[in-house]
Amino acid sequence: MNIAVLGTGTVGETIGSKLIELGHTIKMGSRTNTNEKGLAWVQKNGSQASLGTFAEAATFAEVIFNCTKGVEAVGILKSIDPNALQNKILIDLTNPLDFSNGMPPSLSICNTNSLGEEIQQNFPELKVVKTLNTMWCGLMVNPSLIGDELHVNFICGNDEDAKSWVKELLRSFGWKNNQLIDLDDISAARGTEMYLPLWLRIYGATKNGAFNIKIIS
Amino acid sequence: MNIAVLGTGTVGETIGSKLIELGHTIKMGSRTNTNEKGLAWVQKNGSQASLGTFAEAATFAEVIFNCTKGVEAVGILKSIDPNALQNKILIDLTNPLDFSNGMPPSLSICNTNSLGEEIQQNFPELKVVKTLNTMWCGLMVNPSLIGDELHVNFICGNDEDAKSWVKELLRSFGWKNNQLIDLDDISAARGTEMYLPLWLRIYGATKNGAFNIKIIS
Repeated sequence: MNIAVLGTGTVGETIGSKLIELGHTIKMGSRTNTNEKGLAWVQKNGSQASLGTFAEAATFAEVIFNCTKGVEAVGILKSIDPNALQNKILIDLTNPLDFSNGMPPSLSICNTNSLGEEIQQNFPELKVVKTLNTMWCGLMVNPSLIGDELHVNFICGNDEDAKSWVKELLRSFGWKNNQLIDLDDISAARGTEMYLPLWLRIYGATKNGAFNIKIIS
Repeated sequence: MNIAVLGTGTVGETIGSKLIELGHTIKMGSRTNTNEKGLAWVQKNGSQASLGTFAEAATFAEVIFNCTKGVEAVGILKSIDPNALQNKILIDLTNPLDFSNGMPPSLSICNTNSLGEEIQQNFPELKVVKTLNTMWCGLMVNPSLIGDELHVNFICGNDEDAKSWVKELLRSFGWKNNQLIDLDDISAARGTEMYLPLWLRIYGATKNGAFNIKIIS
């Protein structure tokens, strides 16, 4: 399948390389189609990999991964012709981390709204599915890295068919059904995004970012 | 030990009864010392239990549990003579849940501040330790209720001796050392309080509030 990965950071590179390994064809999107990190990624990932502007990547794709910086996501999507977004699934795994006042980051949007909702409200033509935003990117594409305990990945979104499709893709990443916790509509993105400050403190306390949570009951 | 439990809700009752079971003497604090729920709790819990105003309870106690409604906590503490708070440990297990706009609640304070910090800033004479606020109260005092897996309880606060004392008390509740995750100073309360929206969505998805999280790495 033709998939766009918006963003040339570590998350975008990790997701893009995993999708190529799974046989998909990926156009990574950046501000320019000559972005150095993007070109380096393409060179490493062979003929299924290419680079384009955000708009070129979205136009090329049937499904879009949003791996941009959370605080820039809405502006980037607004720079794309709405026709290139029409009826497409957007998998949003970003968090609205605001580093403008230094460390630790605060959230640029939270509590009574979330980035997931903000994207869905601004782009009703997209089917936004929020997932994978509660962990380090190495675990996103390789959940068994930390053993076979049933640590979880949350998923939410307003479109049931889109969520079903994304769950199938997540299973191809290695996620088992009973690791996928469906939190219902996109407003649950408030919960998963607001978990980030706790995630950062756990990371600070344990000095290990390769962790995730399991629900015990 | 003489301990105050401020608040006559389910959390206060649960904590108060557990402390009595452990041999402590408890004065529950309320707006009036004739609060019906408070009197009913006293009657059930025998001679180690009594009821007083918030100020009477704080004066009586060596250590204070804050089990009030989060949005009311600072106001309640301001109604108490600062001499009754001087140098005491305050164990804060409340969350600033704001139900004024219906369900789901938002947080009345979050992101760049937290209730734990707000209490510590307003009452420098207290040693505020935030803990137990990430779970249903039945688990706070009985962690083995959901088996022997190492689900976690976060703790934070600015005073190391106060945290050590609280950890000892938590061990008497049944918490094992490797279940207690020390997140450092009181600013980590942002993380544990901002987890509540996710907690509520997990509860909504699983229909089971008797759960907690375990760190897998």
